[in-house]
Amino acid sequence: MRGLRPPADRGMERILGIDPGSRITGYGVIVSDRGRIGFVACGTIKPLPGLPFAHRLNQIFDGINEVIQLQGVTVAAIEDVFLASNPRSALKLGQARGAAVVAAMQNGLAVYDYSPKAIKQGVAGYGQAGKAQVQHMVRVLLGLPAAPSTDAADALAVAICHANQLHL
Amino acid sequence: MRGLRPPADRGMERILGIDPGSRITGYGVIVSDRGRIGFVACGTIKPLPGLPFAHRLNQIFDGINEVIQLQGVTVAAIEDVFLASNPRSALKLGQARGAAVVAAMQNGLAVYDYSPKAIKQGVAGYGQAGKAQVQHMVRVLLGLPAAPSTDAADALAVAICHANQLHL
Repeated sequence: MRGLRPPADRGMERILGIDPGSRITGYGVIVSDRGRIGFVACGTIKPLPGLPFAHRLNQIFDGINEVIQLQGVTVAAIEDVFLASNPRSALKLGQARGAAVVAAMQNGLAVYDYSPKAIKQGVAGYGQAGKAQVQHMVRVLLGLPAAPSTDAADALAVAICHANQLHL
Repeated sequence: MRGLRPPADRGMERILGIDPGSRITGYGVIVSDRGRIGFVACGTIKPLPGLPFAHRLNQIFDGINEVIQLQGVTVAAIEDVFLASNPRSALKLGQARGAAVVAAMQNGLAVYDYSPKAIKQGVAGYGQAGKAQVQHMVRVLLGLPAAPSTDAADALAVAICHANQLHL
């Protein structure tokens, strides 16, 4: 984790995890109360592919904004992507991530960054865990009746990773 | 230019040009009235380098938002960067650009993208024009008493490029 350090345990938090992407942005909200976590909501924001890119970015901002306000989110955590196949796709991914980050900041939330490795380590105990493994562990840790979609599961994993940090 | 097409000439526009960057974001506002352009304002947004990245992105959003509201901007144009030295810097630049784009979109503005080549072509008549040449031509075209900083000049060049498109 880089950037701000999480505050010491201060009771209940409603944590928004974000898995940013220009085509699909996953989000997941969990509640963390003194070391115990519970599922609140999850889903994906899928801007219409035919829209101009600026509109797609705006839909990501609006989507994250709506989740924050609807679910009473108190803190945000977002995947910090280092790798992209090429600068062109990195620029697209970066813009999607920027739109999501400012949506959280504009709501006055602290935003914490976690590397993909730290997130996988946090939910599956293994930094190289695969997508299916993360999906499975998110389901188990939150006691869900079914596995969320991979993008929503990745977002919930970010939120769980942040909850773990709060109670180390 | 990609994305939306500019509307047909509809009289006066106050155009915000943006040259996005994670360290320095240049902005420039011009007025375009039936083919004649005039200078309104320009400057740079320089987030404090020591701040966590999410806060720097938020300062870009707030800065662009302030300029739009203060200067009564009616349309935005932003440099569309294709090239970055590596995926890591592309991710940073992308996030800065995303923050600026959603600030414009949240104000209900249409946002037009112009390639660096189109911008240079638009102000200097030459797609490979250097920074100093762009700076000089922006000064001449807007009748400024002195040349703006390179970042502000690049942003004004984007705005001028959009004004040209309105009156082709």
